Amino acid sequence: MSGVFITLEGGDGAGKSTQSSLLAAWLREAGREVVTTREPGGTELGVEIRHLVQHRRGHVAPRAEALLYAADRAHHVATLVRPALERGAVVLQDRYLDSSIAYQGAGRVLGADEVRELSLWAADGLLPDLTVLLDLDPEEGRRRMASRADAPYDRLEAAPDDFHARVRRQYLALAASEPARFLVVDAAADPDAIHARVREGVAGLLEA
Amino acid sequence: MSGVFITLEGGDGAGKSTQSSLLAAWLREAGREVVTTREPGGTELGVEIRHLVQHRRGHVAPRAEALLYAADRAHHVATLVRPALERGAVVLQDRYLDSSIAYQGAGRVLGADEVRELSLWAADGLLPDLTVLLDLDPEEGRRRMASRADAPYDRLEAAPDDFHARVRRQYLALAASEPARFLVVDAAADPDAIHARVREGVAGLLEA
Repeated sequence: MSGVFITLEGGDGAGKSTQSSLLAAWLREAGREVVTTREPGGTELGVEIRHLVQHRRGHVAPRAEALLYAADRAHHVATLVRPALERGAVVLQDRYLDSSIAYQGAGRVLGADEVRELSLWAADGLLPDLTVLLDLDPEEGRRRMASRADAPYDRLEAAPDDFHARVRRQYLALAASEPARFLVVDAAADPDAIHARVREGVAGLLEA
Repeated sequence: MSGVFITLEGGDGAGKSTQSSLLAAWLREAGREVVTTREPGGTELGVEIRHLVQHRRGHVAPRAEALLYAADRAHHVATLVRPALERGAVVLQDRYLDSSIAYQGAGRVLGADEVRELSLWAADGLLPDLTVLLDLDPEEGRRRMASRADAPYDRLEAAPDDFHARVRRQYLALAASEPARFLVVDAAADPDAIHARVREGVAGLLEA
């Protein structure tokens, strides 16, 4: 039995955590070891790196910020994701390299291609077997986030609306360029209906 | 008047700080604005990054470590070095990309070419106008360091002797591949004699 690497992508409020929980429960019921994790901040070092970046709003040079997130990724992949995959686990990860490309690319300071190249170097080439893109109108995502008691605040969420529209377009362009890796789901649908679609995609992957 | 970027390289104990001080005094006497700085840790963010790396001896994945040092470099170059050069200052910097290549390359986990490429991306292509390599037998460097009351301790200094021998060979290979940028000086010589040679090289650069 070999490991399977699944990432969940999409804007804040798209339902990544909900879908991750539903999928994890289903996979565990099917007898698989499941590791749920996230970037940035999936390791102790990563939490410290995220703290460094987020507590210096606007005072980190753009390339430095990209390199700090890449360092978080490198450590996370080397010490947590790869070992889990090597022992046959299913890794369900909230955000991975497509987030870096979509968000940093949408920021228009760095090019999508160089961010992708940097991420792949950090991860020593590891790409997900499946990436679920929960596609949602940013306005709806914002409404959902505002109603959450534990709404996280970070610099990206404070960005103007057209930034989030660019992120969404970047995500959809990434999905279009790698249709075999991406499963694009309408995140405005009912969570159970979304879960059924995701399960279908994952089942096909587990059989393969 | 345009800025000049000079870096000092070499193993610990080779005399980089001494030569930097002598050169700074001479340049200031000649009426130039001089900025002395260092990597890693030349900015507040850089100090925090260095702290992150050095307080986790052996627990940082190699690519993550390289990316953290590159993040320090990106922030330092963008916020301190480039602005100083743009206003016409002479920047004297203790360690720069050649340190990353020599030390990380000597560690044999990452290739010298990929470390160089990463550094150049971080620095958005900024190369020094002159790099002074203070070349010294690592044994002699270690003796000098041991006799210093303020001897810093870090993971690199705790490395075995053959590591430092590889670092020295990497440095010399870098100097050989870019003779126009490098000034290689025998660091076993008298500090004043070394300063005279360095001054000569810098004078040529200031006239050019």
